[in-house]
Amino acid sequence: MLKKSIPFLFFTTLVFSLASAQKEDSLQLRKITNEIMLHGKCYAWLDYLSNKIGGRLTGSPQAAAAVEYTHQLMDSIGADTVYLQPCMVPRWRRGDKENAKILTNNSGEVTVPICALGGSVATAQGGITAEVVEVHSFEELKKMGTAGLRGKIVFFNQPFDETAVNTFDAYEKTFMFRYIGASEAARYGAIGTVLRSLTNSIDNYPHTGVMQYNDSLPKIPCCAISTGGAEQLSKLLKNDNKIRFHFEMSCYSMPDVKSYNVIAEIRGSQHPEEIIAVGGHLDSWDLAQGSNDDGAGVVQSIEVLRTYRALGIKPKRTVRIVIFMNEENGGRGAKKYAEEAKRKGEEHIAALETDAGGETPLGFGLDGTKAQKDAVMKWKDLLLPYGLYDFSTTDGGADIEKLKDQGALLIGLQPDSQRYFDTHHTAADTFDKINKRELELGASSLSMMIYLLSEHGLNEGTIIYH
Amino acid sequence: MLKKSIPFLFFTTLVFSLASAQKEDSLQLRKITNEIMLHGKCYAWLDYLSNKIGGRLTGSPQAAAAVEYTHQLMDSIGADTVYLQPCMVPRWRRGDKENAKILTNNSGEVTVPICALGGSVATAQGGITAEVVEVHSFEELKKMGTAGLRGKIVFFNQPFDETAVNTFDAYEKTFMFRYIGASEAARYGAIGTVLRSLTNSIDNYPHTGVMQYNDSLPKIPCCAISTGGAEQLSKLLKNDNKIRFHFEMSCYSMPDVKSYNVIAEIRGSQHPEEIIAVGGHLDSWDLAQGSNDDGAGVVQSIEVLRTYRALGIKPKRTVRIVIFMNEENGGRGAKKYAEEAKRKGEEHIAALETDAGGETPLGFGLDGTKAQKDAVMKWKDLLLPYGLYDFSTTDGGADIEKLKDQGALLIGLQPDSQRYFDTHHTAADTFDKINKRELELGASSLSMMIYLLSEHGLNEGTIIYH
Repeated sequence: MLKKSIPFLFFTTLVFSLASAQKEDSLQLRKITNEIMLHGKCYAWLDYLSNKIGGRLTGSPQAAAAVEYTHQLMDSIGADTVYLQPCMVPRWRRGDKENAKILTNNSGEVTVPICALGGSVATAQGGITAEVVEVHSFEELKKMGTAGLRGKIVFFNQPFDETAVNTFDAYEKTFMFRYIGASEAARYGAIGTVLRSLTNSIDNYPHTGVMQYNDSLPKIPCCAISTGGAEQLSKLLKNDNKIRFHFEMSCYSMPDVKSYNVIAEIRGSQHPEEIIAVGGHLDSWDLAQGSNDDGAGVVQSIEVLRTYRALGIKPKRTVRIVIFMNEENGGRGAKKYAEEAKRKGEEHIAALETDAGGETPLGFGLDGTKAQKDAVMKWKDLLLPYGLYDFSTTDGGADIEKLKDQGALLIGLQPDSQRYFDTHHTAADTFDKINKRELELGASSLSMMIYLLSEHGLNEGTIIYH
Repeated sequence: MLKKSIPFLFFTTLVFSLASAQKEDSLQLRKITNEIMLHGKCYAWLDYLSNKIGGRLTGSPQAAAAVEYTHQLMDSIGADTVYLQPCMVPRWRRGDKENAKILTNNSGEVTVPICALGGSVATAQGGITAEVVEVHSFEELKKMGTAGLRGKIVFFNQPFDETAVNTFDAYEKTFMFRYIGASEAARYGAIGTVLRSLTNSIDNYPHTGVMQYNDSLPKIPCCAISTGGAEQLSKLLKNDNKIRFHFEMSCYSMPDVKSYNVIAEIRGSQHPEEIIAVGGHLDSWDLAQGSNDDGAGVVQSIEVLRTYRALGIKPKRTVRIVIFMNEENGGRGAKKYAEEAKRKGEEHIAALETDAGGETPLGFGLDGTKAQKDAVMKWKDLLLPYGLYDFSTTDGGADIEKLKDQGALLIGLQPDSQRYFDTHHTAADTFDKINKRELELGASSLSMMIYLLSEHGLNEGTIIYH
């Protein structure tokens, strides 16, 4: 009898304590969300970052101001330590000339909205003019070869795939035209490229974004044209494939300069060596305020810190807020952070990134081992009441990806993606597009996930939460 | 052996045919979504309804124009039958006077934004002025009683519960202040009421909406004040509870007039007697264009018809598009539709409503028997790739609720609710707030659900879709 009753007692005690732990977690998640929805400050911080500081291109005065602002802000909220992590960053500048026109053979000139892609070289003074060739794939480009492309301007006009429910899937399919399109065109003697902006909308905003030259090929200037402009250019080309395109850009690069990641940390009370990092990136493109990309992620991450302080939660594991510098055109902040973590022998059990916009959060992407993912999936029923249902992608994030090799589970906040590319990297990425509740729900999602990670870690064994 | 092999064969055949049926459904849902995301017209129709017709208050010239527009539109798309279903509707009008101010005792007058609640009587000419009493519940009102309220203006100032993740839950908690607040205040001798607008935002838009008088009590004028105005009034009251409120409104009612539901139908090829209805409401409030409430639902419903036609789908069961009149202030169209269905002995197996905005769809509310809901839930894995995961509510919709008694499963499209109340019933409910992809995804969600219903009905027995 005794032999039987002990396991039974043990089992009921276990069930009871699990149920009670689950209930406690559930109450704590509710407290976290209530704190943010009732007293959240992230919307006001984003207002400041957007309207008082503005666009924060890496290495710009505004980026420096944003470092100072977030440093002071996290200092004033209070943490066990708040510090700057220096890193050298590139300085690309747009310059003051950026214009383009389509030169038709029988109906005059048409001015169209363009912007230089980040990293592009300038055109010759006064601009360049050449016949323009429309392509939709690298295969098409290769087929045309030098015979078809020498001395011409290549027009990459592959539209977004509107049938992709997640707009990031459409972005992925066209991203390479922006990233390596210039060099691929230069390979066949083209003298410039025009990229159809990477967006779902048909409008007049050109979308910038980083590009990369292949150093073994000539560096040719590359710009993005608004989708409205791309539609018009394509239509005109259908009637006359001898029309020419003219564009002028005066962008340039300056020597690297010192900048910083901004870091704050609450040390874990039981397992301080186990680190959970969360962050977004402080730099943005220069065309607008960078409110959604990624001001939203910055203020959501800092809201995690404020919430821990406001509720007096003492995490069992170390929670570290990392505001990364230079995600958009270099990733130097991310590189430095990962190098330093490795050098110090730090153990990141998880790294969270919020760089997919401030829209309504729907879940998290998980990139790690099966055991790590399984540990997180035990909490899914706790997160469902907050609209977090989708854990199906492996999207972590560019600023944290280097931590995967160091053993961290990468966790990327996944907001609703429908509106994201409407403003992405354009002059339209401004504070008025941000909805307070959507932004706050994202901050709450991060805070809840970090709470569960810091309370339970990822090695808690067989506990199953329903 | 024979005895064993037959069931085995039967079983494998069944499994094979189920897998194949499921695959066919999955392909068809993909086709439906692609058709809408690539060739959808609902966004352009909503542009017309919003910008060429405008606000469509029941019984107004604009409502009549909208009847004509949607009738012609569905006629031009083509259906087995397109017709108008007449019904008498009320005519409440705002009039040309609508203004308010707070009369402080030591810092002058403060003009605040108000609007009449739909159905309110006018104030006396020149307006009414009285001391104002802030309350947050009907209990508080009762406690104050006649002694505290006679001759005064009652200010219902219960804010939205920001901790509710679904904003409709917050709406439900405060809705009754709008609906019966005036009569409840009149019960204790109040001479007017001011309602804090039912919204999450703090801004300067007053939100109108229907109210109802208790015929056994005096009818007193009632208005909504913007949340910004409500905050200010409440703050001023904290310093001086003797301040007065003044408001003037010249709203009035005219005799009922004839209007219409607009109906189109594709008859089922195998079970024409089984009807699946889908609709939104054509009328709106008068303050703006009614783009989100419920122009979105109207054009999404018509998109279902266009999609069936464009893809040449012949539904096994009858698919009926019902554009309802007078949802906002009377529900006469819904009443007429249900009465006629009953009179004709029609069998609605399901009725779908889209009246929760054009934002990203997240699921469907289901209101019916367990068997009906179970039948729908078999399809959930087919719908998940389109972001439709939430079937947890029983929210059907006001225009279809009367069909439940007639045996229909009520199905309400559930879009993301975060932004809905920002513009609800205000001057800000305009076309520019609508995102094309979000709107189209809603149309696609309805079309997919209707496809599954029309192909399989709700009595298909034990088939389980994974």
